[in-house]
Amino acid sequence: MTHKQVLIIGAGFAGLNAAKRLRDLDDISITIIDRENHHLFQPLLYQVAMAALSPADIAVPIRSLFASAQNIRVVKAEATSVDLAARKVVTDAGDFPYDYLLLACGARHAYFGHEEWEAYAPGLKTLPQATEIRRRVLEAFEAAEKETDFERRRRHLTFVVVGGGPTGVELAGAIGEMSRFTLAQDFRHIDPRQTRVILVEAGPRILPSFDEKLAARAMRDLESLGVQTWTGGAVTDITSDGVTIGTEHIAACTVLWAAGVRASEIGRTLPGVTLDRSGRVEVDDHLNIPQHAEVFVAGDMSRSVDANGKQLPGVALVAMQQGIYFAETLRADLRGKARKPFRYHDLGQMATIGRSRAITEFGRLRLTGLFAWWFWLIVHIYRLSGFRNRLSVLIQWAWSYWTFGRGARLIVGKEWRAYGAEGKV
Amino acid sequence: MTHKQVLIIGAGFAGLNAAKRLRDLDDISITIIDRENHHLFQPLLYQVAMAALSPADIAVPIRSLFASAQNIRVVKAEATSVDLAARKVVTDAGDFPYDYLLLACGARHAYFGHEEWEAYAPGLKTLPQATEIRRRVLEAFEAAEKETDFERRRRHLTFVVVGGGPTGVELAGAIGEMSRFTLAQDFRHIDPRQTRVILVEAGPRILPSFDEKLAARAMRDLESLGVQTWTGGAVTDITSDGVTIGTEHIAACTVLWAAGVRASEIGRTLPGVTLDRSGRVEVDDHLNIPQHAEVFVAGDMSRSVDANGKQLPGVALVAMQQGIYFAETLRADLRGKARKPFRYHDLGQMATIGRSRAITEFGRLRLTGLFAWWFWLIVHIYRLSGFRNRLSVLIQWAWSYWTFGRGARLIVGKEWRAYGAEGKV
Repeated sequence: MTHKQVLIIGAGFAGLNAAKRLRDLDDISITIIDRENHHLFQPLLYQVAMAALSPADIAVPIRSLFASAQNIRVVKAEATSVDLAARKVVTDAGDFPYDYLLLACGARHAYFGHEEWEAYAPGLKTLPQATEIRRRVLEAFEAAEKETDFERRRRHLTFVVVGGGPTGVELAGAIGEMSRFTLAQDFRHIDPRQTRVILVEAGPRILPSFDEKLAARAMRDLESLGVQTWTGGAVTDITSDGVTIGTEHIAACTVLWAAGVRASEIGRTLPGVTLDRSGRVEVDDHLNIPQHAEVFVAGDMSRSVDANGKQLPGVALVAMQQGIYFAETLRADLRGKARKPFRYHDLGQMATIGRSRAITEFGRLRLTGLFAWWFWLIVHIYRLSGFRNRLSVLIQWAWSYWTFGRGARLIVGKEWRAYGAEGKV
Repeated sequence: MTHKQVLIIGAGFAGLNAAKRLRDLDDISITIIDRENHHLFQPLLYQVAMAALSPADIAVPIRSLFASAQNIRVVKAEATSVDLAARKVVTDAGDFPYDYLLLACGARHAYFGHEEWEAYAPGLKTLPQATEIRRRVLEAFEAAEKETDFERRRRHLTFVVVGGGPTGVELAGAIGEMSRFTLAQDFRHIDPRQTRVILVEAGPRILPSFDEKLAARAMRDLESLGVQTWTGGAVTDITSDGVTIGTEHIAACTVLWAAGVRASEIGRTLPGVTLDRSGRVEVDDHLNIPQHAEVFVAGDMSRSVDANGKQLPGVALVAMQQGIYFAETLRADLRGKARKPFRYHDLGQMATIGRSRAITEFGRLRLTGLFAWWFWLIVHIYRLSGFRNRLSVLIQWAWSYWTFGRGARLIVGKEWRAYGAEGKV
C-alpha cells in the first residue's frame, strides 16, 4: 500500500483537472504524458483560426502549470497502447507502469472514410490546423484582390464550412464578420462584403443539440453576417474546385471541415471494451472499463451517459468534471471509502456568432444576442488556465471589439528554409 | 506631369517609412509590393525564437497600416526582376510600371557557399524560422528530460550559436537565461542549469562594430548567464552531430546560425550596377543606381557609405532614414526643388544580453547593464508599429520580467494534417 503510481495520458481538460486536484498528495507519484508540451484551450481554437488570437494566448506549457508540484512529473511522449494485464502504458519514450490510469487522449477530426478530403478541407483540432486555416482564409482574400476574372474572383471569395455544430457556426460567423467589418476597408479592388459564406449541415437544422428556437435565432444572426445555411444535404465530394452536395456544386477555393470527430486510436488497444461508431470507449457509471476498476477513460475519447441514458456531449465541461471525478475517486480509495458513481452537472451550452452575438442554454435559462455574448466572454476568460493568458486574451478582445481589427492577421508560411537544400534533420 | 506611379518593393523599415511619408499626396499613386502580408519588426525576431513573444506581437498587416490612405495600394506578390528600360517590375502577379521605384527587399541569412548547413543550423530572418528555432530549443530540453545516457543528454543540452554579432549575442544570452531561470524549476530529471551555450565567432572578438570595452563587458555578461565565447575560429563543418571548428568538434543537437546575410536576389537583375560580396547593390549618395535617378535602392539590400567613407550597417535605423529620404526626394522633385544627398544620422547601436543587461552606444554615450537594458526596452517598444503591438509587447515583457516566465513557450509542430493522405492542394 505504498506510493501509488498514477498515470495520466493526455493533458486536456480531463487530465489537467485530475492532476490539479491530486497535487497535494505526497504519497502518490503522478506522471502526465502528452505528445504536446502544452495544454490547449480548445473552445477558443477557432479564434486563432480566425486571426483574433495568437496560439500562445490559448495554450500554456504543461510543465509550468505543475512546476511547484513535486509529486508530478511531465513527459512529452506519444502513448501508443495500453497493456491492461501488465498494468503499463507503452509510449515512444518507453513503458510507464501504473496503479491508477486515466486515459484522456481526446479526439481528432474525421471524414467518414473520405480522408482524401482533408487536403481540401482542413479540420480544426490542433494549433497547426488553426494557423493553416488562418493562412487559407487570408490568402483567399489576397488572391481575390489580384484576380481580374469575375468567376475566379467569386470562387476565391466563396467559403464553405461543413458541419453545423457549434464549431461550424463559430467559424462561419467569424468569416462573415471578418469580411464585412475587419477587412472591408483594406482592399482596393475587391469588396470583401461580396464574400459568400455557406454553412452546410447534413441534418435538418444547425445546432441540433440546442433548443430549436435558439438554433433558429442563431441562423438569423448568421444571415445578418452574410452566412447562408444549407441544411438537409450531405456532402458527397470535396475537391480543389469546391464542394459537391448530391447534384449541386459550390465552386469554392476555401473549404473548412467541422463535421465529424474520431476518438484517439489508443482506445482500440484496450482488449474487451466496446467502441462506438466514432471510436469512443464505453465506460460504466464509474468511468471504468469492464473488469478494471483501476482504469478510467474520460473526455472526448469516452462514451458515457447521464442519469436519463442520454449520451454526454464532447465538450470541455464534461471532460473537466470527469477529471475531477477521477481525482475524488482516487482520494476515496486512499482513505478506504466507498466510490460514488459519476454524475454530470449540466451547466449548459453556448455557441457564439460573430462579434457580439451568442446563444446560451443553462437549464431553463435561455439567452440570445449581446447579453449571451457577454456571458460567453466572461465564462471563457474565467476558465482560461493561467493568468497571463486571461489578461492577454481580454486585452485583445477589447481591442478587437473597439476597433474591429484583428490583431493576429498574419499569413505565416510553413517553410522556414531559405534554400532548397534537402538536408536530413 | 500627371499622376506619378510610385512603386515600393518590400514593406520593411525602408518601404514602410517611405509610404508613411507619402500618404498625404493625392497626385501620386503608390503601390507597395511584398511577398508577405505583414511588416515584420525584425529587431525583436529573436524574442519570438526564444519564446518570449508571439509572432503577432512583432508583425502587423501591411494593409491595415494603410487602410485609410486612398493613394496607396498593397499587393501581396513576389517581385522577380526589374526592367530598367521599360520602367517596370516583373512579379508573379504581373508587371507593375513605375515613374519612381524604391527597391528595399532586404536580405536573408547565408552560409558562405555551405547551404547544406541550413538543415542543421537554421538562420533567423523570418517568422517561420523563428518558430522553427523555438521548436528546436524547447524540444532539446524535452529530449534531455527523457534521455538516460549521459553523453546523449549532454549533446541535447549543448547549444551552439554561430556568429558573434548582435543577433548571435542576443540568441545565446536568451538561451542561457531561459535555461538558468525560466526552465530551472520545470524539469525533474535534468537540471537545465547544466546547459552549455557556446557562441562561436570567427573574428578576434564578439560585437566587432561596438566599442572594445563595451564588447568585453557584453562577454562578461554572457559568461554570467553560462554562455562561453569561442573567438578566432571559423566553422568548417556542421552536421547532425554538431559543429566542427578546424580540428575541434562540439557535439551539439541544436545549432543556430547568425553569421552571414545575403542581399535579395532581385539586385542581380539590375543591369549595370555593382554588387558587393554579399550581393548588396552599390548606390551613390542619392541612393540611386548609375544612370537612373528614378531608381532608389535602400535598406539591407543596398551598400552605401557615410561622409567618412565608412559602410553603413544593415540595421533598422539606416533603412528607416533611407525610406524617409526617398519620400523627401520625391517631394522635392514634385515641387521642382533640387535634390539633397542622403546623410545618415548615427543614432548609435544596441545589443541586449538576457533579461536585464544590454550595451548601447550613442555617439560618445556608452551605457551598460540594467540602465542600458531599460533604454533598449523603451526605444524598441516606442518604435513598434501599431498601438496594439506596443501594448501587448509591454505587458508580456513586464510579465516575463516579474515572473521569469516565458509566455509563448509552445512547441507547435509543422504538420496540420491528421491523416497521411497525399492530396494535392
